[in-house]
Amino acid sequence: MIKKSIDLVDEQALKYIAAGGAVLGAGGGGDPYVGRLMAMQEIRKTKPVRVIDIDELDDDDFVLPIAMVGAPTVMLEKFPSGNEIPKLVAMMEQIVGKKVRAIMCIEAGGLNSVIPFIAAAQMDLPIIDGDGMGRAFPEIQMVSFTLAGIKATPFALMDDKGNGATFDTIDNSWTERLVRVLAMEMGGSVMSSMYPMSAKQCKSSLVRGSLSLAHDIGKMMSEHGADACQLMAETYNGIHLFQGRVRDVERKIEGGWQHGVVKLEGIGDFRNREVSLEFKNEFLIAKEGKKVLATTPDLITLLDAFTGQPVTTELVKYGLPVNVLGLPCDPIWRTPAGIELSGPKYFGYDVEYSPI
Amino acid sequence: MIKKSIDLVDEQALKYIAAGGAVLGAGGGGDPYVGRLMAMQEIRKTKPVRVIDIDELDDDDFVLPIAMVGAPTVMLEKFPSGNEIPKLVAMMEQIVGKKVRAIMCIEAGGLNSVIPFIAAAQMDLPIIDGDGMGRAFPEIQMVSFTLAGIKATPFALMDDKGNGATFDTIDNSWTERLVRVLAMEMGGSVMSSMYPMSAKQCKSSLVRGSLSLAHDIGKMMSEHGADACQLMAETYNGIHLFQGRVRDVERKIEGGWQHGVVKLEGIGDFRNREVSLEFKNEFLIAKEGKKVLATTPDLITLLDAFTGQPVTTELVKYGLPVNVLGLPCDPIWRTPAGIELSGPKYFGYDVEYSPI
Repeated sequence: MIKKSIDLVDEQALKYIAAGGAVLGAGGGGDPYVGRLMAMQEIRKTKPVRVIDIDELDDDDFVLPIAMVGAPTVMLEKFPSGNEIPKLVAMMEQIVGKKVRAIMCIEAGGLNSVIPFIAAAQMDLPIIDGDGMGRAFPEIQMVSFTLAGIKATPFALMDDKGNGATFDTIDNSWTERLVRVLAMEMGGSVMSSMYPMSAKQCKSSLVRGSLSLAHDIGKMMSEHGADACQLMAETYNGIHLFQGRVRDVERKIEGGWQHGVVKLEGIGDFRNREVSLEFKNEFLIAKEGKKVLATTPDLITLLDAFTGQPVTTELVKYGLPVNVLGLPCDPIWRTPAGIELSGPKYFGYDVEYSPI
Repeated sequence: MIKKSIDLVDEQALKYIAAGGAVLGAGGGGDPYVGRLMAMQEIRKTKPVRVIDIDELDDDDFVLPIAMVGAPTVMLEKFPSGNEIPKLVAMMEQIVGKKVRAIMCIEAGGLNSVIPFIAAAQMDLPIIDGDGMGRAFPEIQMVSFTLAGIKATPFALMDDKGNGATFDTIDNSWTERLVRVLAMEMGGSVMSSMYPMSAKQCKSSLVRGSLSLAHDIGKMMSEHGADACQLMAETYNGIHLFQGRVRDVERKIEGGWQHGVVKLEGIGDFRNREVSLEFKNEFLIAKEGKKVLATTPDLITLLDAFTGQPVTTELVKYGLPVNVLGLPCDPIWRTPAGIELSGPKYFGYDVEYSPI
């Protein structure tokens, strides 16, 4: 288990978390840049956000995740108005009939690693060290909470114009389907709250320590630059899968997701080899010809070979030299139920999951 | 004003209302057949539904419309499960914080002239003699309640599988837009509740007597068959616009609505003339060449020339001989605000509204 490495998130710690969150985003989850700026502004206005361990809460305390839902590409250009969160929290408190005691990340990767800090600062609430993924995934039901039988609903959305909606669905896959189509109609990305739960439910299902992990990775990147790739692989039992130059990128937005393929031409030790990475918001599979190098639910992350900075699927472009880093997913995703929910077959690849 | 002509709706009265509702549907609103069967079943299980005048309620009584939202064509094949209404009513009562005292029709035309009787029978509540249109219209904001500044939200949807959603939007046009896309994703037609209001609000905005009107029209059709067309025109200041045979029908489902054109070749007194009717769920405009015979918000209704029965836009077909009946809309739609909300220009026709 990951040791808690932060108590208070100030501007510096938030920078680390955003940088580490971009690594855990596995190419998806959106670039945390805009969310980081918004969260910093809130922290400057109020005070640093307190990070707590879930065990510090009483079993019947009410815990609320906050996240942006939609296409990451849209999030870069269409910002939240800043008024969404208090309304979302009020909607959820009315439905559940309890006051929120702590904010939580639904995913530790990408934009949603920092969005909850806006909520925590605005609402003067602590944030829990953990999330539902230990990374980013493209679909709402792909969280450890689903594996624990916790419902995604009541689910609340609030767009930047002030339109709100709530859902109460028969299962988390229907939530995903209905929320996705509504988020698209609301402009492509919306502030949301889902999986409201008791601290007791959270204790039994949380991927613990993921904010600390993001923080530690971000700090490592800040201190080691381009060398951080190798260091991360060693520290977290990962693999430096490939080094190459981007030869081609295909991208399309379909059904609210960004789909595509990144083709890489080897450089350095990987000269004369070719690797392709397919993504649906997040990278799902890395292949060399027919040989599979890594697949979801393990993390496949791109890092700029010069700066060491993570490169998201919406920002990767022709000519960029990159390192491909494979990191092991949280053990919960390696259970049969975890593989069924987020493994390669779910995404239509006729491949068995083989842990890296 | 239309005199209240019914106190209790039994199976016979429901038949009349469904038949009259199909006339007021102006080609849209869905064929009331399935809804009538469901309502009859409920009435048989419980007892006839009491029809009340809105003035019988106290100002702060809570009044709730119930309706199907979606494409009429879908409603003919995808029935409600029967469990939606109690859940919808409970959702609305929780949000509003009051018990419902009476059920209301949002539109007196088509399927939604009878759907609320299912609710009234299931919930053992009276139904109000009136609606928000005095006819059927294709969009949710096209009700007298919008003209009175009453919000469509909270708006609740419940599909036949048990997926529920609620909306709280910034205006009624956003409600229309968001509800439409969700109703499509939920299968094309869903049971809904919207425009929850106090009896006081209802008294100032209701199109009164429209259930009585539907009932009287239905009775007239039952007693006079094919001659009812002429009699309705005389009784309700309408016009027998045309008699012809269907020469062509174009239909497409787009954005949750059924759009199309019906072309008619004159017969009888109308020989050697040609008329086209354009529709978006409901008939919007009747033209002879470039000459406009009638437009929304007035009612344009097709009646089978042999049986006298109304023919909806999803059932009209090649070769059918029909009468085209024009009926004046409720005076509220002839105000500048009414014309702006539902007149020909709203639907993209470069035509001034000229009352029939």
